[in-house]
Amino acid sequence: MSLLSLADVYRARQRLAGRVALTPLVASPALSARADVPVFLKLETVQPTGSFKLRGATNALAQLAETGVKRVVTASTGNHGRALAYAAHALGMEAAVCMSSLVPRNKVDAVAALGARVVISGKSQDEAQVEAQRLMREEGYAFVPPFDDLRVIAGQATIGLEIFEALPDTATIVVPLSGGGLFSGVAFAAKQIRPDVSAIGVSMARGAAMHASLAAGHPVDVEESETLADSLGGGIGLDNRHTFAFTRALADEVVLLSEPSIARGIAHAYREERLVVEGAGAVGIAALLDGLLEQRKGPIVIVVSGANIDTTVHRRLVAER
Amino acid sequence: MSLLSLADVYRARQRLAGRVALTPLVASPALSARADVPVFLKLETVQPTGSFKLRGATNALAQLAETGVKRVVTASTGNHGRALAYAAHALGMEAAVCMSSLVPRNKVDAVAALGARVVISGKSQDEAQVEAQRLMREEGYAFVPPFDDLRVIAGQATIGLEIFEALPDTATIVVPLSGGGLFSGVAFAAKQIRPDVSAIGVSMARGAAMHASLAAGHPVDVEESETLADSLGGGIGLDNRHTFAFTRALADEVVLLSEPSIARGIAHAYREERLVVEGAGAVGIAALLDGLLEQRKGPIVIVVSGANIDTTVHRRLVAER
Repeated sequence: MSLLSLADVYRARQRLAGRVALTPLVASPALSARADVPVFLKLETVQPTGSFKLRGATNALAQLAETGVKRVVTASTGNHGRALAYAAHALGMEAAVCMSSLVPRNKVDAVAALGARVVISGKSQDEAQVEAQRLMREEGYAFVPPFDDLRVIAGQATIGLEIFEALPDTATIVVPLSGGGLFSGVAFAAKQIRPDVSAIGVSMARGAAMHASLAAGHPVDVEESETLADSLGGGIGLDNRHTFAFTRALADEVVLLSEPSIARGIAHAYREERLVVEGAGAVGIAALLDGLLEQRKGPIVIVVSGANIDTTVHRRLVAER
Repeated sequence: MSLLSLADVYRARQRLAGRVALTPLVASPALSARADVPVFLKLETVQPTGSFKLRGATNALAQLAETGVKRVVTASTGNHGRALAYAAHALGMEAAVCMSSLVPRNKVDAVAALGARVVISGKSQDEAQVEAQRLMREEGYAFVPPFDDLRVIAGQATIGLEIFEALPDTATIVVPLSGGGLFSGVAFAAKQIRPDVSAIGVSMARGAAMHASLAAGHPVDVEESETLADSLGGGIGLDNRHTFAFTRALADEVVLLSEPSIARGIAHAYREERLVVEGAGAVGIAALLDGLLEQRKGPIVIVVSGANIDTTVHRRLVAER
């Protein structure tokens, strides 16, 4: 963690200026009534590529471009790949994106539509990463990891700056947790600015690699399975360099959610907040609805990380029951 | 129009600071491809009350509060009433809201939930306004008109400031047009900043009072009927003081949309932009999809004015056909 400073985060923000949206922080009367403290939603859903991933990808690529790199590659469950494709196009670079066969079709199409080369390989994000590393070795692409990278973490951390500028007395932040790039960045910036803030990570119970790794005391693999929070799938890498240590040091608690809870979060976002939110983006809302944040001080800020859900799935989940 | 200056708009912004969201301006790759010029969406959907109306209401109430007024009343198709209720609560004032019986139930409930007194009266916005005027005369409330008011227009005009700060070379603005408060404000600020910008008003064909008034050369009544763009219903007032003159002077064109077009706009917003948008908020998108903006210079900014649609109606409109 001493490898990153708040100055790095401010420099990331300078690179992001004009390329990435300053996203709104909106009060949720419905969730505030539920929690009995003020609750705000940080809407990364309005980023140009529909998720926060554009921040980290843009920061990494802008730094690579400065050193003359022209071709970049990554493995991704979709949102990082989409972000990389968009950022590469904006910066005049070429992007290749490797994905596992579990990635939903709408995410594959979205990356291809942004002009990137899409490579489908294997049944897990780890296998897709192996393919990305092959492209790097054999075809001269620069590898941009989806989360375990200080440039990526610094990019996601700009969300933390924006939260505390908009709401300086934020007491609790609730952040989706998968590989830990988003969580590490936001929690790092938050605790640099206000050391006594509580940082809660939220994962789906089905295949939560970071949670299992924290319990084991070191990075471990878990089996991937399909989940509504598909953006949270994938391992953290047995050779994890940064996000495991960041998350262990910064997480006050990690909570796990069932699939029905995630579905409730998506439905609440639609019915009460008029937001289209993907499963991974709805986990913070779902955790609150499950009563898992009841002991937490307000104001609570929930990071709503993305909107990229297949609309067929979404329509099924928001149908009246 | 000489009754309003850009300085009034900047003063409105100072009153709005911290009470109203600075809304994002996001690129739409799907609409840009369609129009062959860059298209951006100004997302008033993320305002705390789900529509731009909070701007005008907050500016009007903040000015009334400075003079010691404690109780305010309005007539509203829903969004203005909701905004008034929210702004009154934030400023420690009491609000009463008069609505016609055509207003959808979800909007009535939303206003009541914000602590305002709701009065249902008559079958048109004009009849509801008569009731509001009665409360003003007989019960000592200060009347806050939904659109035909310079304080309200100045509040909505802050959207124009934000558009040109985010995208200084905006060439065309596309704004929903009903009573003309939003259109007058945004077009006024836009043309003060960049006189050669084109300002396009968009109304539904069914009961477009401002369009009929412009054609007649003076304010006329039209029959109200149900429309997907229910927020655009209602007359402009035969005694219209400001918005008719503003709109006549500022509108480069007014286009009208069929109900199926508005439905297409709502469905596009959901499928391609992952946005929940009410009918009145989707008319700019619908106009573009109808090919009505094809001769217009880019960048085009479309004001997406609100999200407050009944989710039962919304789910029906976004179902696959």
